[in-house]
Amino acid sequence: MSSPKALEWDSGKLKVLDQTKLPFEVEYYECRSYQDVAHVIKAMKIRGAPAIGAACSYGVVLGAMKIETQDRAGFLVELERIADVLSKTRPTAVNLFWALDRMMKAAKEFDGSVNELKERLLDEAHAIYWEDVKVNKALGAFGAKLLEDGDTVLTHCNTGALATVDYGTALGIIRAAREEGKNIRVYADETRPYLQGARLTCFELMEDGIDVTLIVDSAAGYCMKQGMIDAVIVGADRDTANGDVANKIGTYSLAVLAREEGIPFYVAVPCSTIDLSLESGEEIVIEQRDPSEVTHVLGTRIAPFGVQVFNPSFDVTPHKYVTAIVTEKGVVYPPFEEGLREIVGK
Amino acid sequence: MSSPKALEWDSGKLKVLDQTKLPFEVEYYECRSYQDVAHVIKAMKIRGAPAIGAACSYGVVLGAMKIETQDRAGFLVELERIADVLSKTRPTAVNLFWALDRMMKAAKEFDGSVNELKERLLDEAHAIYWEDVKVNKALGAFGAKLLEDGDTVLTHCNTGALATVDYGTALGIIRAAREEGKNIRVYADETRPYLQGARLTCFELMEDGIDVTLIVDSAAGYCMKQGMIDAVIVGADRDTANGDVANKIGTYSLAVLAREEGIPFYVAVPCSTIDLSLESGEEIVIEQRDPSEVTHVLGTRIAPFGVQVFNPSFDVTPHKYVTAIVTEKGVVYPPFEEGLREIVGK
Repeated sequence: MSSPKALEWDSGKLKVLDQTKLPFEVEYYECRSYQDVAHVIKAMKIRGAPAIGAACSYGVVLGAMKIETQDRAGFLVELERIADVLSKTRPTAVNLFWALDRMMKAAKEFDGSVNELKERLLDEAHAIYWEDVKVNKALGAFGAKLLEDGDTVLTHCNTGALATVDYGTALGIIRAAREEGKNIRVYADETRPYLQGARLTCFELMEDGIDVTLIVDSAAGYCMKQGMIDAVIVGADRDTANGDVANKIGTYSLAVLAREEGIPFYVAVPCSTIDLSLESGEEIVIEQRDPSEVTHVLGTRIAPFGVQVFNPSFDVTPHKYVTAIVTEKGVVYPPFEEGLREIVGK
Repeated sequence: MSSPKALEWDSGKLKVLDQTKLPFEVEYYECRSYQDVAHVIKAMKIRGAPAIGAACSYGVVLGAMKIETQDRAGFLVELERIADVLSKTRPTAVNLFWALDRMMKAAKEFDGSVNELKERLLDEAHAIYWEDVKVNKALGAFGAKLLEDGDTVLTHCNTGALATVDYGTALGIIRAAREEGKNIRVYADETRPYLQGARLTCFELMEDGIDVTLIVDSAAGYCMKQGMIDAVIVGADRDTANGDVANKIGTYSLAVLAREEGIPFYVAVPCSTIDLSLESGEEIVIEQRDPSEVTHVLGTRIAPFGVQVFNPSFDVTPHKYVTAIVTEKGVVYPPFEEGLREIVGK
């Protein structure tokens, strides 16, 4: 792995790679408070559901470190408030809620002193961090079986080491297939407006020596139609109980186009991204982001002053377009409802 | 009409609006030779199939003006060579070939002196120029009947006054519907890599006071799925006899997505864009353009140095996804082959 790490705990502070500056500058932002962590998430210096989850765990730790009371009940009230602030940074990624729940559960179940509890929280954040890598490797191994030597995979956004703690989800599958000796080529959508494909996926795969070709988002349909693509693999910010998938804007279009051409459409997610509390994707609130993401590209204005903009950050792909959902516990095929409940409960 | 004109003949030279600088600067490039015309087309200072056709006609005139021989046969040989150079500027737009054929036919059929022939060529170029506006208005009137008051139209690339001599094809339909008193809203795809939607369609519609909202290309599917779009209307660079449509990259994806949601997908083209010599879109050569269009946005680099790029400028939408083709002679519904042959022959 030669990509720089998306986040790393460094004696009392969280170093976060500033992904808004990639691929041109590799620069770390040092978070010393939970407010700093909320800021880097909102500003998309760190992004990707699993990476956001891990960052939030450390955000809770940073918040906890500054709580001065030695009273356990008072401490927990304050911790809950901190978790609440962190939970409002990005509405779609479910890993954020999952990580915060896990941190709060660890806090509530621990019955030592407040100082010991602070250490316990750091242990839990480290556990979330390191489990993510293990989870991605297990997921990658299951997913790699779906690819043949010589396959070309289309992917969207960035679902790699940079979107997770390491290794990646959709890109983890590609990495695992490569480690099995399969030769895999990747077509990466640029992924407007934020260009995670152009800036991050290309960067990460090139660093790893994986054959990657950049296309504009609207060329994906053409590539599929020309028979250039053997599989589409994406990540997700949230999967619902019925298998619907909330992911980066444009994912739905890719899924429809893939089905039209008979190309398998795989969704790679850790179980922490599966939200069984929601029956279907219709219940997911789609985040609308700032118009300037659309009117500007890396600071350069591309549209007339005063133009109206609609900027949904995600879309929902109904499960009928999904061939399979790949998790760290195995591959789930339709009907998803049953399979997902079984696998998450494992 | 308050948009600036895409091209205008001005006593011996062709003024071409430099669309690469829109919407931030309104600047004209003066073509004084056929080589200048070839340059502005290749450099995409002028684009849009009908506008390219008109520009090429004047390119032939500029070339003719500099031929010194008074020998008719020698003149025609030289003119043919000039037309050949112009024909190689962009491979997909059929109007270019149509306009050049028409200019060469006018030259061959005229039996006066070489000097008179030069005047005849200027007359023919003017005829092509002014007919384009008439054609677009007739097309617009037919198309406007397909829209209801209050409809929202999704469009791709730029098919307006800037892509034609004036008024536009797909945008001409929207203008005509507005002139009929219908309230029409437009969603404009930004249309990477060249951003004709963000830069040109938004500019042009805002100048005309038409309600336009900019989205990234990959949000189009989401908007359709959310029930926000009543019709998709695009232009084309070439229609084949069976109704297949070559148009800006991303058009195919929109057509598939529209059919998936039961939204009508209309193609607005003058008959000069219909190429009955090709049976189907499979015969159309798709232009591949420079990787820098993808790795850069208006001069700003967005992808790692050395990344591989695939940059097809167009795609082909099979006729099965097309609801109707709107021309200046009427609206053609499937089966297209018969209808197109009848209407073009009118």
